Amino acid sequence: MTAAPRRLESYVCGGWTPGSGDGQTLLDAATGVPVATIDSRGLDFAAVLDHGRRVAGPKLRAMSFHERAGMLKALGLALMEQKEVFYAESLHTGATRPDGWIDIEGGIGTMLTFASKARRELPNTRVLTDGEVEPLSKGQSFSAQHILTPLHGVAIHINAFNFPIWGMLEKIAPTLLAGVPCVVKPASQTAYLTELMVRRIVDTGLLPEGALQLICGSVGDLLDHVGGQDAVTFTGSASTGRKLKTHPAIIANSVRFTMEADSLNATILGPDAVAGTEEFDLFVKEVAREMTAKAGQKCTAIRRVIAPRGQVEALIAALRDRLGKTALGLPGDAGTRMGALASLDQREEVRARIRELQADAEIVAGNPDEVRVTSGDAAKGAFLNPVLMYCDTPFAATAVHDVEAFGPVSTVMPYDTLDEAVALAQMGKGSLVSSVFTDDARVAEEAVLGLAPFHGRVLIGNRASAKTSTGHGSPLAPLVHGGPGRAGGGEEMGGMRGVKHYMQRTAVQGAPRMLSAVTGRWIEGAAATQGTHPFRKALSDLRIGDQLVTAVRTVTQEDVEHFARFTGDTFYAHMDSAAAKANPFFDDRVAHGYLIASFAAGLFVEPNPGPVLANYGVDNLRFLTPVYFGDSLQVRLTCKEINPRENAEHGEVRWDCQVTNQKGEVVAQYDVLTMVAKRWPLRPAEAAE
Amino acid sequence: MTAAPRRLESYVCGGWTPGSGDGQTLLDAATGVPVATIDSRGLDFAAVLDHGRRVAGPKLRAMSFHERAGMLKALGLALMEQKEVFYAESLHTGATRPDGWIDIEGGIGTMLTFASKARRELPNTRVLTDGEVEPLSKGQSFSAQHILTPLHGVAIHINAFNFPIWGMLEKIAPTLLAGVPCVVKPASQTAYLTELMVRRIVDTGLLPEGALQLICGSVGDLLDHVGGQDAVTFTGSASTGRKLKTHPAIIANSVRFTMEADSLNATILGPDAVAGTEEFDLFVKEVAREMTAKAGQKCTAIRRVIAPRGQVEALIAALRDRLGKTALGLPGDAGTRMGALASLDQREEVRARIRELQADAEIVAGNPDEVRVTSGDAAKGAFLNPVLMYCDTPFAATAVHDVEAFGPVSTVMPYDTLDEAVALAQMGKGSLVSSVFTDDARVAEEAVLGLAPFHGRVLIGNRASAKTSTGHGSPLAPLVHGGPGRAGGGEEMGGMRGVKHYMQRTAVQGAPRMLSAVTGRWIEGAAATQGTHPFRKALSDLRIGDQLVTAVRTVTQEDVEHFARFTGDTFYAHMDSAAAKANPFFDDRVAHGYLIASFAAGLFVEPNPGPVLANYGVDNLRFLTPVYFGDSLQVRLTCKEINPRENAEHGEVRWDCQVTNQKGEVVAQYDVLTMVAKRWPLRPAEAAE
Repeated sequence: MTAAPRRLESYVCGGWTPGSGDGQTLLDAATGVPVATIDSRGLDFAAVLDHGRRVAGPKLRAMSFHERAGMLKALGLALMEQKEVFYAESLHTGATRPDGWIDIEGGIGTMLTFASKARRELPNTRVLTDGEVEPLSKGQSFSAQHILTPLHGVAIHINAFNFPIWGMLEKIAPTLLAGVPCVVKPASQTAYLTELMVRRIVDTGLLPEGALQLICGSVGDLLDHVGGQDAVTFTGSASTGRKLKTHPAIIANSVRFTMEADSLNATILGPDAVAGTEEFDLFVKEVAREMTAKAGQKCTAIRRVIAPRGQVEALIAALRDRLGKTALGLPGDAGTRMGALASLDQREEVRARIRELQADAEIVAGNPDEVRVTSGDAAKGAFLNPVLMYCDTPFAATAVHDVEAFGPVSTVMPYDTLDEAVALAQMGKGSLVSSVFTDDARVAEEAVLGLAPFHGRVLIGNRASAKTSTGHGSPLAPLVHGGPGRAGGGEEMGGMRGVKHYMQRTAVQGAPRMLSAVTGRWIEGAAATQGTHPFRKALSDLRIGDQLVTAVRTVTQEDVEHFARFTGDTFYAHMDSAAAKANPFFDDRVAHGYLIASFAAGLFVEPNPGPVLANYGVDNLRFLTPVYFGDSLQVRLTCKEINPRENAEHGEVRWDCQVTNQKGEVVAQYDVLTMVAKRWPLRPAEAAE
Repeated sequence: MTAAPRRLESYVCGGWTPGSGDGQTLLDAATGVPVATIDSRGLDFAAVLDHGRRVAGPKLRAMSFHERAGMLKALGLALMEQKEVFYAESLHTGATRPDGWIDIEGGIGTMLTFASKARRELPNTRVLTDGEVEPLSKGQSFSAQHILTPLHGVAIHINAFNFPIWGMLEKIAPTLLAGVPCVVKPASQTAYLTELMVRRIVDTGLLPEGALQLICGSVGDLLDHVGGQDAVTFTGSASTGRKLKTHPAIIANSVRFTMEADSLNATILGPDAVAGTEEFDLFVKEVAREMTAKAGQKCTAIRRVIAPRGQVEALIAALRDRLGKTALGLPGDAGTRMGALASLDQREEVRARIRELQADAEIVAGNPDEVRVTSGDAAKGAFLNPVLMYCDTPFAATAVHDVEAFGPVSTVMPYDTLDEAVALAQMGKGSLVSSVFTDDARVAEEAVLGLAPFHGRVLIGNRASAKTSTGHGSPLAPLVHGGPGRAGGGEEMGGMRGVKHYMQRTAVQGAPRMLSAVTGRWIEGAAATQGTHPFRKALSDLRIGDQLVTAVRTVTQEDVEHFARFTGDTFYAHMDSAAAKANPFFDDRVAHGYLIASFAAGLFVEPNPGPVLANYGVDNLRFLTPVYFGDSLQVRLTCKEINPRENAEHGEVRWDCQVTNQKGEVVAQYDVLTMVAKRWPLRPAEAAE
């Protein structure tokens, strides 16, 4: 317990270095015992950026999205196996085991979610296409396609003290997926936990050298060296954020800068959710949980509690009761429900903010100056019991909408109409998240549409989702995290949106043959190759542009009537000439769309066993010209996209399928999706997989 | 010609006002005659923002996307009818008729393209969904959907002098489509043309009051009043841009700030495009056109000409010849090929930049200090003949990659390998656009992938697109305009991407019933209503969640064999038990996917004439579980999205179609797209439309 504090090291330019300064001593949040010292003086920060750009950038960019996803999955699994090491170290931060879960397993889980979403949602390529081909000329000699390519710089992630692991992993996962190296600078206060994890990451050997560097201590002159291909993210106080955002090199080079700063997140108790309803009880539980989880040190915690005036008394009583039972103590103790704030300084900071809030609001539960603990030493640990405040005139108040007490502190405020409730939430001037508890879908609709422009995330709580809701305060990998205005204007995560943040979007214009070469996708108007039936080609032989033009088949009245009887699809437009003619789209009876697609498949399939394993779907099918009796159909099937899987003996192939009639008009246009073997014939093991 | 200069007025807070100052006098670029005076002193800038937010914001947000698109289409058509008025005024800016075309018809055309794309690509709603539903729990009691809602503020567009009309319209079109009011501040030098157009716009009465305000003159303290719901865009010099970007109110409120600044756009002559090839000739034509169009005063103009060392001599000779024939004179003269720069000051500015470039490069064509005109007065008009420069050691040079001479000036530089050519282009540190001229698809691929991270747009020129290419220097409404790094890091236009820039993305979480109420779309897990067959309901009766659960149909071996014979689709997995079993996805022979979809339609259609007019397509069809002989199918069809058209008697209805087997497994999942009448029965006029 009282071993000498260890010296944290930075991992830069391929090695660990303690820095040259005397070091700042970091204390255990709950015991006050020194844990570590930290100093980054003496580091060559320009070299750090250069190392990432020069050594890691090309290696990461040479990997495909699925390869990078596989790397992150392996890393996530390796870290999860060692989770107990991180839980043990996490106790020094004041975090209980449930608090640590958010940081440690929440962080690793976020990385794993990114890895699995990338494999599901991105192709196995190095370049992404963005949106559809834009035809820019008649006759298809000039078109455009937006693409996304990885930035050639590094991403510098400057993180807050409250989530030393999640804060790193939620940022490096999308960055590395994009193919961009990272430099992580954790807040010093809890950097020992980040440093421990980076040591374990480096030890796995799973990342290319330079893909992840760590700076323990100040960033020195790092930002002086950023350029237009770099990106900087910052999570922390608005005042520091503003300084970084206006740093001359960031401004001069238009460096992408993402900020996630102060946020006075509000929750609204719906007018229907009166005491006695399930939503009222859920609301009380959620507010109390948000105030006490991580001792209220979450950027997403509820700071403002907006309730119908008539419910305020019952609400305060219920919260006072619940908060009063929160056992405060050493984070490792089984009986502890709330641990310590990050440091004694942090506690003084929160107390100062409470005094500012008192300009507008009175304390109705808890006493910031009187600490009651069930274990630990209230003088040495940064303990603070939950403090609930009440502001009776919130429209006249400013502090309650402006001052963020980053601890177990929230303010209740009354509203008379739902409009007022939404207006109060908006007075936060932009927050990360807001929530509304209601079982009335119209209340949800009105509140959410009013809250949305001011928030990056809005949660609706009601009885139907009570058991499965992830709660007001949990950012999730698939969802956008960040908010407008005061919250910093940033946007992180959001699934693959977060990956694209580290890529440049570029409109590429040219002849289709050229666009096809750039994107690796066949594009209308590009060259095509006819010859062997493309369904006879395994992935090893198949090429973009391989094309089949089929025989012609005439659609007869008998075909349509037969198909109608066989399938039961006797829709009037196929069966009744007068009704079809009365329809604004048709001149007479028409063939079924599904008949056209079925005949098309009959024209293009190759019946013999071969490398095409299955047709697993169809995308963007549009019936563009009606097919009348006597019209004849021909299909042009072109290999459009080849997407081999990393860990299987097959891959997806997307075919452009165009069905035309005897006049050359396009009758139907769609993508046919197939699974195709990498080699043919299959080896017995593959066939049985 | 010598009438007293008119006083420009600002259009703010619902009226025209000349401002109170003495006014700056604006001179005709080609004749030096005073055209107008301008001054914004005395305006209440805080009131301008308040007027937009309070008066216009709610009105715009109450309109649907298609209503706003219809408004812009009507506006664009009205302005196009008056185009000659704008052409006449445009001559004062020094622009020839082709120059004016880019600004006037290019600008109005951009607005019309936005209007038509919005109606094609956006639903007719007030809220957009972004991406797919994210299921967050098993059992579908808790999910999320990202939505986009209009910002509640105003967009302030601060524009450059070179495109007084296009610069306004390309920005206000996406802003107004998003539902956000605009304040436009044109550069004073050519504000008379912007002011004339705003007068005509206001006169149409097509925009809600406050949707467009105009500031003629300085912006005063306008930016002191911006908040987190506002957005600011800036096109102009990097030095002014930096000042605006770091404005305390912009930083403090995380105001969205888009900048489009200096850009040293490069073009590359491919190694294959030697003298004598079509690409060489296209390249010469393109460089000369980019240097002389708008007298080189385009942000996208070619400033750096990167050519194989062996082609430099031939290239310079060809360019010297072509540029020497450029007749310089009064923009209204028929014989004039290049007009004047915007002002005499601007000419001095360009001459100063040329002197800076001479540190690295020599002049090889043209003489900046000796003006030769075919009409007009070289002393009074801001004329400048094209100047071509040559830099022999571009890797050792800095000025040629840093100094933008905003006029008819370009620098040729040699390369030895394609890698070098790309590296030179990258030395511009981020540009709006780059291009490469080659007929070799591998050259195109390598060059474009190297250029893409540093550019917002890359054009490939070759013989195939020679006739239809819109050229290096033309930003287009469907394509992103803006570049990283030195170019400002902004992104404008890009089709509907540009609209979304003025909206807030928000992740909404909750029970599906609640999400459905917020988005107006049915979501898996939300409530559904069964009763009347939904195909019997016109749009006036149909509701989100109206649902049909069909009878059950068993798929037999006879069905599959019959379908195979009928359609010709005798793929082995349907016909050959041994081959099907050898396939890694199947345990035995399976039914055709198209048979499943056809039987599903047979189960769900309502055969009698009714309001469903046509099935025009299918989206996201996935076959999720194989269907073996004897399996039975059931369909659940649910009304998912209703999209009434503005100017028709019908609209699109999207149905969620889920096919399950006897075990309740989902066999197929897709969206069925139909056209449905607004009322039923159709009136005869509608039927005949």
